[in-house]
Amino acid sequence: MTTPHGDFDTPAFMAVGTKANVKGLLPQQVAATRTQVVLNNTYHLMLRPGEQIVEAAGGAHRFMGWPGPILTDSGGYQAYSMADINDVDDDGVTFKSIINGAKIRMTPERSIAVQNAIGADIIMAFDDCPPSMDPTVGPTNQTRIRIAAIRDGAKGIYDHAARLRIANERTVRWLERCKAAHARAEDQALFGIVQGGTDLEARAWSAERITSIDLPGYAIGGVAVGELQDDIASVTRHTAALLPEDKPRYLMGVGYEQDIVAAVLAGVDMFDCVLPTRNARNGQAFVREGTLRFRNARHERDFGPIEAGCGCAACDPAGHGWATPDGLPFSRAYIKHLFMASEMLGPILLTLHNLWHFQTLMLDIRQAIAEDDWPGFAQKWPRVAAAVPGGDGVV
Amino acid sequence: MTTPHGDFDTPAFMAVGTKANVKGLLPQQVAATRTQVVLNNTYHLMLRPGEQIVEAAGGAHRFMGWPGPILTDSGGYQAYSMADINDVDDDGVTFKSIINGAKIRMTPERSIAVQNAIGADIIMAFDDCPPSMDPTVGPTNQTRIRIAAIRDGAKGIYDHAARLRIANERTVRWLERCKAAHARAEDQALFGIVQGGTDLEARAWSAERITSIDLPGYAIGGVAVGELQDDIASVTRHTAALLPEDKPRYLMGVGYEQDIVAAVLAGVDMFDCVLPTRNARNGQAFVREGTLRFRNARHERDFGPIEAGCGCAACDPAGHGWATPDGLPFSRAYIKHLFMASEMLGPILLTLHNLWHFQTLMLDIRQAIAEDDWPGFAQKWPRVAAAVPGGDGVV
Repeated sequence: MTTPHGDFDTPAFMAVGTKANVKGLLPQQVAATRTQVVLNNTYHLMLRPGEQIVEAAGGAHRFMGWPGPILTDSGGYQAYSMADINDVDDDGVTFKSIINGAKIRMTPERSIAVQNAIGADIIMAFDDCPPSMDPTVGPTNQTRIRIAAIRDGAKGIYDHAARLRIANERTVRWLERCKAAHARAEDQALFGIVQGGTDLEARAWSAERITSIDLPGYAIGGVAVGELQDDIASVTRHTAALLPEDKPRYLMGVGYEQDIVAAVLAGVDMFDCVLPTRNARNGQAFVREGTLRFRNARHERDFGPIEAGCGCAACDPAGHGWATPDGLPFSRAYIKHLFMASEMLGPILLTLHNLWHFQTLMLDIRQAIAEDDWPGFAQKWPRVAAAVPGGDGVV
Repeated sequence: MTTPHGDFDTPAFMAVGTKANVKGLLPQQVAATRTQVVLNNTYHLMLRPGEQIVEAAGGAHRFMGWPGPILTDSGGYQAYSMADINDVDDDGVTFKSIINGAKIRMTPERSIAVQNAIGADIIMAFDDCPPSMDPTVGPTNQTRIRIAAIRDGAKGIYDHAARLRIANERTVRWLERCKAAHARAEDQALFGIVQGGTDLEARAWSAERITSIDLPGYAIGGVAVGELQDDIASVTRHTAALLPEDKPRYLMGVGYEQDIVAAVLAGVDMFDCVLPTRNARNGQAFVREGTLRFRNARHERDFGPIEAGCGCAACDPAGHGWATPDGLPFSRAYIKHLFMASEMLGPILLTLHNLWHFQTLMLDIRQAIAEDDWPGFAQKWPRVAAAVPGGDGVV
């Protein structure tokens, strides 16, 4: 992909930097994980510091000191994820500020104006993201969505099929308004977002209508918000196939390694997810064989690296220009100590490791594509390959 | 100074890394501030992860990935600073663990055994640090010390003059025990600590007795624990002059820039202080003109650096190998945003800046000594020079 702030390779994993920073890392440390694109969030930056501040700084790149590509999410997902404190109507969403409780009105026009001010290379349409499944009856891990649905249902208005249809229709109308309001089409690529929950017909309807609006790229939204992994994969496969071949396809908020591989096989080009960064802060490291939890007692006297052979700044300090005593890595025992002592450096080291891990995955995926060698990929990532839903081409 | 883990320049400012890390920084980032020595704390590491873990890792240098010199404080200061939950007697101190409330017994022998296990290049004697002034009557900002003194006084046993005398006598006996217990004199330099509060006669007595025990270096303890700045300077001047000229003199826990300059003029070679690192985490930056508070609204639209001309990684990213957009620094507005949003990166950037600031001070002090040019120093640091207590040679 080419942007005004440089190219990036696809399939790409973009690091989440919600509030104009990847938590705990200087931008040079983010780059050292081989991350090429950083996400910022419109809703959060609008509330704090305010888009005027980011604009006055010269845009997000200058504000956060990141010279590479930036993508901003539109705030549509926050309307969904905090549905219990928001009200959505045909014109937009009324948010309750998480900072001071003030009512904040967000419309397609407002979201685009804020994103024009923030100045990311890729900006996202403001969409109406519905619950993927009926939250009043089905299993869901989205408590706040369930609360909102029950609240709406108590008013006699929650009907999941109707909610999906209304969201789909709104998302199309809002996309038209986003495109019309977009004042920087020459240097900011606006992506439309396909919704439709786990209903494949609703997805098809949305994909057809959304892609009928000419835009530089399209995203699949409303995925990995509580569904089963097989549903994530089938919705992705179904929807990605309906998006133009010659434009980037972005699967928002996904996911685990096997979800990414499945989506790449379905033709997806771009990913973002909080997993490597958020889980790092909770003491979880991703390794080829699975995950490690650093509050676990088993690491107490383990003086080996997080993962043998890993090239991240924690596992291979020398590869990052730092000569530790005897060339030793930052050990599992040390990282466990840092977590037990609530030291910031624990999350920092695991964030460096986890982002490196996901970027290694993407590099190996690109190699598998370039060399058409998925068996070779499966040899390097046996656990991931075995877990890919419907991954017959991989294992 | 020469140590088994390399040389460092004096006068030296050592960074506080209590729990085997300088909070928020990878060791390479610590080194990039031109810090040459890191402090670890015996009490904290003994409780967590336990000195056995550090020893099994191959010592503190390997454990924390720091190849340079390390100094460990003995735990004596924690006996003082948490006096309200500790009990001191002629043989040692019974601590209440801050982690689980367990009773922990610390003696000179135990402190040295722990420090031998941790393996720092310079280790400190286990001392009995008394309140510098009578906490039951004088002004003090040491609430916990006051509580302890009032508690002891209620039992009819707090008498400040007696407390000073007992502490001084104990500190000498404990130093003899430390020296006798020290099992690694060949590669760990044990420093004795002079006590005596603000009583210059008590200081003289302690200095005479402590220095009569042959050791590679001597420290001045119990300073900057609530006294007025003039008292800090006069105690330092008085005591430093009583220490051997041919051995390093270490003023523990000091201090502001002007305190350091005053102490250097008194002949002190080594310093440590939490100010640059702790205050960074509270949003305070040190600059030549004074300090800046990053929660202050005045920084909201200030897109300049923390300090013009500063070479730290925040003010001069290019000097640290990172090409920000248009070569801009991390701005005051950005750092304020990070603090308002409770992002770790705010403390990290200010820690990098503040350590750079203190190391720049030390470099300029060394230059003033080498060139015998204190007027030149005063030109570079006018605010500091003007504030040096009794600094006639400087201003």
